[in-house]
Amino acid sequence: MTAAPSIPADLDLWLVENDTRSMDELFAFLRIPSVSARSEHNADTARAAAWLHASLARIGFTSQIMPTPGHPVVVAEWRKAPPGAPTVLIYGHYDVQPSEPNELWTSPAFEPAIRDGKLFARGSVDDKGQLWVHVMALAAHLGARGTLPVNVIVLAEGEEEVGSPNLAPFIEKHRARLSCDHVIISDSAMFAPGIPSILSSLRGLAYFEVTVRGPSSDLHSGMYGGAVVNPAMALARALASLHDSRGRIAIKGFYDRVRPFPAAVLKGMKKLPHSDARFRKELGVRALGGEAGKTTLEKLWTRPTCEINGLLSGYTGEGAKTVLPGEAMAKVSFRLVPDQRPEIVERLFKSHIMRQLPATSGVTVNVKALHGGRPWRADLDGPLYDAAKTALRAAFGRDPVIVGEGGSIPVVGDFERILGAPVLLVGFGLPGENAHAPDEWIGVDNLQRGMRAMAALYDELGG
Amino acid sequence: MTAAPSIPADLDLWLVENDTRSMDELFAFLRIPSVSARSEHNADTARAAAWLHASLARIGFTSQIMPTPGHPVVVAEWRKAPPGAPTVLIYGHYDVQPSEPNELWTSPAFEPAIRDGKLFARGSVDDKGQLWVHVMALAAHLGARGTLPVNVIVLAEGEEEVGSPNLAPFIEKHRARLSCDHVIISDSAMFAPGIPSILSSLRGLAYFEVTVRGPSSDLHSGMYGGAVVNPAMALARALASLHDSRGRIAIKGFYDRVRPFPAAVLKGMKKLPHSDARFRKELGVRALGGEAGKTTLEKLWTRPTCEINGLLSGYTGEGAKTVLPGEAMAKVSFRLVPDQRPEIVERLFKSHIMRQLPATSGVTVNVKALHGGRPWRADLDGPLYDAAKTALRAAFGRDPVIVGEGGSIPVVGDFERILGAPVLLVGFGLPGENAHAPDEWIGVDNLQRGMRAMAALYDELGG
Repeated sequence: MTAAPSIPADLDLWLVENDTRSMDELFAFLRIPSVSARSEHNADTARAAAWLHASLARIGFTSQIMPTPGHPVVVAEWRKAPPGAPTVLIYGHYDVQPSEPNELWTSPAFEPAIRDGKLFARGSVDDKGQLWVHVMALAAHLGARGTLPVNVIVLAEGEEEVGSPNLAPFIEKHRARLSCDHVIISDSAMFAPGIPSILSSLRGLAYFEVTVRGPSSDLHSGMYGGAVVNPAMALARALASLHDSRGRIAIKGFYDRVRPFPAAVLKGMKKLPHSDARFRKELGVRALGGEAGKTTLEKLWTRPTCEINGLLSGYTGEGAKTVLPGEAMAKVSFRLVPDQRPEIVERLFKSHIMRQLPATSGVTVNVKALHGGRPWRADLDGPLYDAAKTALRAAFGRDPVIVGEGGSIPVVGDFERILGAPVLLVGFGLPGENAHAPDEWIGVDNLQRGMRAMAALYDELGG
Repeated sequence: MTAAPSIPADLDLWLVENDTRSMDELFAFLRIPSVSARSEHNADTARAAAWLHASLARIGFTSQIMPTPGHPVVVAEWRKAPPGAPTVLIYGHYDVQPSEPNELWTSPAFEPAIRDGKLFARGSVDDKGQLWVHVMALAAHLGARGTLPVNVIVLAEGEEEVGSPNLAPFIEKHRARLSCDHVIISDSAMFAPGIPSILSSLRGLAYFEVTVRGPSSDLHSGMYGGAVVNPAMALARALASLHDSRGRIAIKGFYDRVRPFPAAVLKGMKKLPHSDARFRKELGVRALGGEAGKTTLEKLWTRPTCEINGLLSGYTGEGAKTVLPGEAMAKVSFRLVPDQRPEIVERLFKSHIMRQLPATSGVTVNVKALHGGRPWRADLDGPLYDAAKTALRAAFGRDPVIVGEGGSIPVVGDFERILGAPVLLVGFGLPGENAHAPDEWIGVDNLQRGMRAMAALYDELGG
């Protein structure tokens, strides 16, 4: 580790002096129950957009609330940087998850409260608090210096928690105006307390519903059992065929497009402070699973998977009912890694299932693709990542680690594809932050360090 | 086939003369909605017992309505046969299945109607109509001759459709009074129109609920998928291990106690007019399943099976939810043949599942036995079966066939075990009779032939 630089004193001082005001304003933002999934909260969601719009205008941005077929997008711009300075687009979202079950919150979801250095509120980490980190970092520059070293576009949507249905069309439509050199998103977590983290890969998704149909109606398992192909049994056999005995996916051609992760990234992962024993304990299991010969973080971040997400057939109530089901259903999804493609996995999976359960097998099978998304991996070389590493080191006092994420964030690929700019995913949450659960929180120290890291990052990018 | 004898002319004449009255009375019986499963029908169920009690008293029996912890048992006796005459116990039930869905009945369930020679009503075949066959056969003897050649006990319960919870204790308690030489039950179907049938075997049952538990709660399949053992996948693999590639059950020791059916019975089955093509068409399937090298009737009547009756895990609603389920459940049941025992199958099945999913596998498994019943097979030699063959030949003009039944009727074993008397299962329903479905029916000609066959049977048994 190189000696830690420190963040510019003027920006740090401004943030210290404005800390109380900053927290008061964030509390006001968090009090707005902008639950995008619930139409009864439409007025609240609109209010959150207006609130954010006003805040950005107040710090010196030219802000606009732009309609979409759903909730609006707030676009705020500051374009007075010196000639030749790059343009940075900061993406976040002002909508939040529903708060239910409310009875499991220690303090009410929309009444922010600080306990033990943690700020509890719905939206504290996902994503109002992290969006606020950027607003304050920008405010520090404009407040302390009256200027910014880079041109900045803040784009905040209100539909992230309902799958961002209108975001990609919005970016497409306004691609010229949104044109930029770097995209920065803070909507993720750090690997562990005190360890700044850059999220460099996301897995893709290919999600299917498999329906196996046998007899045209449910039958009495006594009267018919033993002479009829049981669709639930046929489905179980087909599902069992999806992995081999070493935990690898046994679908022909499945791994063909998997591009290995760089050795340096894999090596970095091995150094991360991860404990399988603790992981098992958290999950309440005696043994872990997956591909033989891979570490847990490798499996979660760098390897494709196949999981059953749901099963339904026949009688599932209490007690015994002697039914031979007419139909059985499984939800099966694959997580994908570069350069796998959901549409290719769909073809391979369908062929595999059809080979297992051909038309002559006594059942008919239907595989329906429900959802797909491409995997993503950052190119870790280049000025954006160099700047991020320096800025994070300055704010946290140590080098950031490179982490992966097993899940999918489709908008990341959309930004990269439509705007042609690299995306930096740098988050300030922590494991156990309850992003979609009761008692969502963010560490107050990470809010403050995050503001300093981002303020320093704009300096780094401005050169 | 030997030359068909005919039934005694006096009994036939009595039945002809009393046909209208008999049908009127049966209609009245069928109009009582004695649905034992529904407490709102408790008064109706009691009314059906009283109605049957009065009918038996009217034809000359000493009848009694005897309480149980549930619905009462009607016991009616006639014990004036010549010294040395055997005692016959006739079992039936006066309760019926619920009629829902009512909108699928062509005519209302409790308004009997005859169309195309079929009597439609809930209870027409299961079992009021078949019980009525015996009442009229007894009435013919007492009406035409003033006497019966055998002593007779009619025992009709009101809880058959809810699993006869109080019947075995009732028989135990009154075993001295119910002591008899033969038990006759008419609650089954003929193999095909015009073919009188004796049901000589029933399969047993061993029913289980298998629960596989993985992580202590549902997880996000993106964040955790690939490193955690998915309990639904573990369950699918365990279920897939239950059969081998030839359709045999792959549980060690499972077939050890299977006693082959007599060659004559198997040979008889091969002669029955069964068509796999028609069977497939009825079920709406392109191919049949089960053990290789066995005929369909063999599989259904003489071989044990293992079926999945239900599956449930994770997300089963519409669309995609990326959950890695914490738990997966299957209902699995076995049909048993002599001399398999449910308690032995339980032990073998549990061992098999535990070997598939040991404690080291990352999941924990629980196998709960929900229901069990022994298989049953009649000894086809002896006076009861000889008499039945002669009587059926007299009424139907051809020899009866010996059939099996894939399902289970636990009371059969109870009668045999407690009373030590052989049981004759002779039914007058037909395939497609909709016993537990809308538009339940019985053929009017089979009602009439049944009365004559049973009237002749008492003569045969009286010697």
